[in-house]
Amino acid sequence: MGKKVLIVGGVAGGASAAARLRRVDETAEIILFEKGEYISFANCGLPYYIGETIEERSALLVQTPEDMKKRFNIDVRVQNEVLSINREKKSIEVINLASGQKYEESYDVLVLSPGSTPLKPPIPGINNPNIFTLWNIPDTDAIKGFVDNLKPKRAAVIGGGFIGLEMAENLWDRGIQVSVIEMLDQVMAPIDFEMAQQVHAHLRQKGVDLRLSDGVKEFDYNNGVTTVTLASGAKVDAEIVLLSIGVRPQTQLAKDAGLELNERGGIVVDSTLKTSDPNIYAIGDAVEVMDFVQGIKAMVPLAGPANKQGRIAANNIAGASEEYKGTQGTSIAKVFDLTVANTGVNEKSLKRAGKAYGVDYWTSIIHSKSHAGYYPGALPMAFKLIFDNKGKVLGAQIVGHDGVDKRIDVIATAIRFGGTIEDLKELELAYAPPYSSAKDPVNMAGFTAENILKGDLNVIQWHEIEGLDSEKSVIVDVRDPVERELGYVGGSINIPVDDLRARHGELDKSKTIVVYCAVGLRGYIAARILKQLGFEDVRNLSGGFSTFQNVYC
Amino acid sequence: MGKKVLIVGGVAGGASAAARLRRVDETAEIILFEKGEYISFANCGLPYYIGETIEERSALLVQTPEDMKKRFNIDVRVQNEVLSINREKKSIEVINLASGQKYEESYDVLVLSPGSTPLKPPIPGINNPNIFTLWNIPDTDAIKGFVDNLKPKRAAVIGGGFIGLEMAENLWDRGIQVSVIEMLDQVMAPIDFEMAQQVHAHLRQKGVDLRLSDGVKEFDYNNGVTTVTLASGAKVDAEIVLLSIGVRPQTQLAKDAGLELNERGGIVVDSTLKTSDPNIYAIGDAVEVMDFVQGIKAMVPLAGPANKQGRIAANNIAGASEEYKGTQGTSIAKVFDLTVANTGVNEKSLKRAGKAYGVDYWTSIIHSKSHAGYYPGALPMAFKLIFDNKGKVLGAQIVGHDGVDKRIDVIATAIRFGGTIEDLKELELAYAPPYSSAKDPVNMAGFTAENILKGDLNVIQWHEIEGLDSEKSVIVDVRDPVERELGYVGGSINIPVDDLRARHGELDKSKTIVVYCAVGLRGYIAARILKQLGFEDVRNLSGGFSTFQNVYC
Ligand SMILES: Cc1cc2nc3c(=O)[nH]c(=O)nc-3n(C[C@H](O)[C@H](O)[C@H](O)COP(=O)(O)OP(=O)(O)OC[C@H]3O[C@@H](n4cnc5c(N)ncnc54)[C@H](O)[C@@H]3O)c2cc1C
Ligand SMILES: Cc1cc2nc3c(=O)[nH]c(=O)nc-3n(C[C@H](O)[C@H](O)[C@H](O)COP(=O)(O)OP(=O)(O)OC[C@H]3O[C@@H](n4cnc5c(N)ncnc54)[C@H](O)[C@@H]3O)c2cc1C
Ligand SMILES: CC(C)(COP(=O)(O)OP(=O)(O)OC[C@H]1O[C@@H](n2cnc3c(N)ncnc32)[C@H](O)[C@@H]1OP(=O)(O)O)[C@@H](O)C(=O)NCCC(=O)NCCS
Ligand SMILES: CC(C)(COP(=O)(O)OP(=O)(O)OC[C@H]1O[C@@H](n2cnc3c(N)ncnc32)[C@H](O)[C@@H]1OP(=O)(O)O)[C@@H](O)C(=O)NCCC(=O)NCCS
Repeated sequence: MGKKVLIVGGVAGGASAAARLRRVDETAEIILFEKGEYISFANCGLPYYIGETIEERSALLVQTPEDMKKRFNIDVRVQNEVLSINREKKSIEVINLASGQKYEESYDVLVLSPGSTPLKPPIPGINNPNIFTLWNIPDTDAIKGFVDNLKPKRAAVIGGGFIGLEMAENLWDRGIQVSVIEMLDQVMAPIDFEMAQQVHAHLRQKGVDLRLSDGVKEFDYNNGVTTVTLASGAKVDAEIVLLSIGVRPQTQLAKDAGLELNERGGIVVDSTLKTSDPNIYAIGDAVEVMDFVQGIKAMVPLAGPANKQGRIAANNIAGASEEYKGTQGTSIAKVFDLTVANTGVNEKSLKRAGKAYGVDYWTSIIHSKSHAGYYPGALPMAFKLIFDNKGKVLGAQIVGHDGVDKRIDVIATAIRFGGTIEDLKELELAYAPPYSSAKDPVNMAGFTAENILKGDLNVIQWHEIEGLDSEKSVIVDVRDPVERELGYVGGSINIPVDDLRARHGELDKSKTIVVYCAVGLRGYIAARILKQLGFEDVRNLSGGFSTFQNVYC
Repeated sequence: MGKKVLIVGGVAGGASAAARLRRVDETAEIILFEKGEYISFANCGLPYYIGETIEERSALLVQTPEDMKKRFNIDVRVQNEVLSINREKKSIEVINLASGQKYEESYDVLVLSPGSTPLKPPIPGINNPNIFTLWNIPDTDAIKGFVDNLKPKRAAVIGGGFIGLEMAENLWDRGIQVSVIEMLDQVMAPIDFEMAQQVHAHLRQKGVDLRLSDGVKEFDYNNGVTTVTLASGAKVDAEIVLLSIGVRPQTQLAKDAGLELNERGGIVVDSTLKTSDPNIYAIGDAVEVMDFVQGIKAMVPLAGPANKQGRIAANNIAGASEEYKGTQGTSIAKVFDLTVANTGVNEKSLKRAGKAYGVDYWTSIIHSKSHAGYYPGALPMAFKLIFDNKGKVLGAQIVGHDGVDKRIDVIATAIRFGGTIEDLKELELAYAPPYSSAKDPVNMAGFTAENILKGDLNVIQWHEIEGLDSEKSVIVDVRDPVERELGYVGGSINIPVDDLRARHGELDKSKTIVVYCAVGLRGYIAARILKQLGFEDVRNLSGGFSTFQNVYC
């Protein structure tokens, strides 16, 4: 018999570590402890089972204890909670939750993958009977049972993160009228404000009652209805409330054992995923990771990293010394008909870190079609690229209907290689009309970013328009007159791009000229013309009227 | 007035160069010569207009001469063919095809983007009235007019490349019974034989009469019907024949001017896209490029490279010295319900270059789902990865229904950065159930490749099975008994993977053990078990029974 390896937590990180360890070491004794009833379940699928997109409950159970035994010869103990770790004795204390019996188990190596747990702040009324959080199979059964049996008409989702919005969609799919309540001024925190606007518009268009910049003050339960009172005083009534305002690492066990934790309770690990105790590894939501782009410490509770870390920890237990190089926070969510995705750093966090736009970093927003415009079904996506002074890609955010996942994955890949906007220009991506354009949106993002960085194109951001001095600047709408009928930037004059060579005399060279079109392309061409005609300060509205409109109209 | 720049060819490369040049140089005099009636048309969309997926002919015309004048102040001369170049005088001779008038035009810089032209070998009867090639708008009008008016019942497509197969699909969409005739033993030359099998099966399933390994001997026209006689003696009757057996660069002009050409007639350019004459640039299908992966010279007639080269040439004319770093041949095609894509080098060309499997390069075939299996609509894709001894990714081929374009683009990006299979393992791609799995197929390809390269997994390729010595080897099907009902490898015995720990005594340790399952995953687990139990020579069938079956069943 080889090493005795105990694993705490039987889902994403833990089960992956167990399976991989068996493949690299047939002789190890592997015991997997899971306090819940289920292992290896599809956390990420839970909302879709409630919404009945996933029809069979069994589909959520990717592996069972029996199959893990048969295939991997792993001793899986569900309903067995690990209570404490005795690091000196190298043993753990376990309680069998079914029998109530406690026992000890010794280890050579211990792996912690306890995950996180939904935040439940002490808001008055938070324990009302119709307030739920969603994290595991029992939660799912409870919520689905409630919806199936009590047929609530109104739901309040507290928190506009990806789980909140997935739940909003899935409750809506069940015919429930949904309110989403978010304390910040935007949903989907990983993307920036102007990018989230499109999500807000889409949610509202679907009939979701979206309440931004308003937190929950209290919950009052009355005869099957919870009244959610907001900080603003507004009240929202709902027969079911879903709380999804964030998670925290489930690390009491690690803390009690004296393992090093960070200030957010995350387990500190080295690059080989070892904790401060050389016989204990930790992985998944519970650990602090390196932010791949910024090189600072971070907590990123996502399934991809958890699965990969599980594999690396297993390799290292079996003798390798593989490193986990960090997490870049690539994430994606389906929000009704939209796809919202991001990778790397966003502008908000750069600002928070004290970085200045136009000095430390730059951004570019384009609106590209998912595939060749002449082939049916091409749909636009808003694509924000963030890059530093040397052109290094720091992050990207994309919101659209189709092909969003592809472009975010390409950027995520480029970021992994430390790629620059030069590299994006050159990427040779697959082109045929149903799939892309000869210049893919990723190439286009690279071109536009390069033009900005080289100074061939000066841009102005949507939020800078308000601050323009109308004495010293003029805003020129270079679209066709008919396009103005659906809205325009207040105070702008109209000279279509194709008339600019003939009509530039109408503009004052001593002023700042702000040009804009629908998405930025014609504005760019206009800016190039004016600049070369001797206008010194010409700026193109980044993302064009589309982005501006998302925020202001 | 700035430089006078003449551009020959007004479509992908030429029009892109012209537009970009104007953006970087407002003062240049730019004249675009196009011998055809149209510029900037969507070559790649032509088949879909014939098939009526693209409904409006006008959608094919991305730009018109009038608009190029208005927006970019470019003098576009359609139906003006450039007849010769006088390099000494720095002038060209042009014929206005409408008026028959010839004239001269001087240049400071000349750009050649003449593209290629379909091959039409001297096969008897090749000029029959119902034999077409497809390259431009007039070709399209002719073919569509023929189909609309004469309503052919049977079509013969000669050549199974991407244009041939796109035409097969689009003619089929018009209700025509289609035969595809291909001289090689497979369609879609950029992918390898075993990967093409799935395409063959799909074509046949759609009712396409597919004739492989059979060339055309002659065409006989009789009363509206062309009888295609094949080398084998077989005959195919068709009211319409579409010839798409390849292209050659249209470089007579360059040749007559004494510019350096390669042996295939491609214009030789340096990395800045300059020809052997410093005042002449050349781009697009007509030029020889560097194969990005192999570092050898190649001809790659694709729109992405042509567009990008156009932009680079324009930059260089305006004073930059930007380099075109090579073409990796990323391409994709929709073939009925399948997507077929590749990037980098294939195994055939490695073999042709004298490289040996298992010495110079390795391959791995996996079958992954397009997204999480528990979320509806997940469809399998066959994914072949090719990598060298150091793990460097050389190429990939993917055939599937959904998400193929995304994975090929990720691999294409990794190749661009010189990425390895280690890198593929670590890529942090966007995961939510509708889009991917926590371990994306690209990660999975990386894992599997690593296992092969490290020797943790020895694989056997589908074509090696036949050569096994049955005295010295045993083939073990590790699937469940019920899965054998739909077929199995001849001579295999059945021990399900989950029984292997108990039943390995039934196997002879002195023999080569070949294991296989449906796709390779359980076979891999079985191989790991046996190997660690002391079996010395265990090999897993790469791609499993799926790949084997594609070829043999
Ligand atoms: C509704 C929902 C949707 C999600 N969607 C996505 C998505 O689309 N994409 C994405 O990347 N991520 C998603 N996630 C996040 C993802 O599921 C987690 O990041 C991932 O599961 C973390 O893996 P882990 O192993 O760290 O923790 P978990 O998978 O949560 O597993 C931890 C397990 O440890 C057990 N445990 C804890 N302490 C003990 C103890 N003392 N003794 C015994 N057992 C213990 C817990 O019961 C739990 O089952 C989603 C999560 C949820 C809840
Ligand atoms: C049906 C079809 C489908 C395709 N699908 C795809 C696809 O899905 N993906 C992809 O990447 N590629 C595809 N391609 C290939 C792609 O269109 C070409 O690679 C690309 O157009 C090459 O650009 P180019 O500028 O070199 O040549 P072209 O775009 O062909 O332009 C060359 C132009 O030069 C003109 N010309 C030549 N000589 C002279 C002269 N002496 N005087 C004046 N004019 C001249 C020609 O008339 C021609 O219009 C497809 C091509 C076809 C025909
Ligand atoms: C189910 C679970 C235990 C599977 O773990 P796993 O066995 O490591 O993962 P997979 O079944 O995907 O198999 C991956 C292995 O198959 C190998 N493989 C895949 N396809 C293969 C093929 N065609 N040929 C050979 N090997 C193949 C891979 O190389 C990898 O093996 P390795 O890690 O030893 O290199 C674990 O992923 C889990 O619990 N998942 C559910 C929980 C979860 O992740 N939740 C969050 C997301 S909803
Ligand atoms: C139509 C055609 C002339 C367009 O050329 P083009 O103007 O270079 O290309 P696009 O219209 O895509 O515009 C790209 C430019 O817009 C810029 N751009 C795009 N979106 C932008 C935005 N939102 N804000 C600012 N700039 C933007 C890009 O940076 C790029 O400019 P640059 O090259 O100066 O950096 C040329 O592509 C063509 O002829 N195509 C049809 C033929 C063909 O390609 N056939 C084969 C495929 S079917």
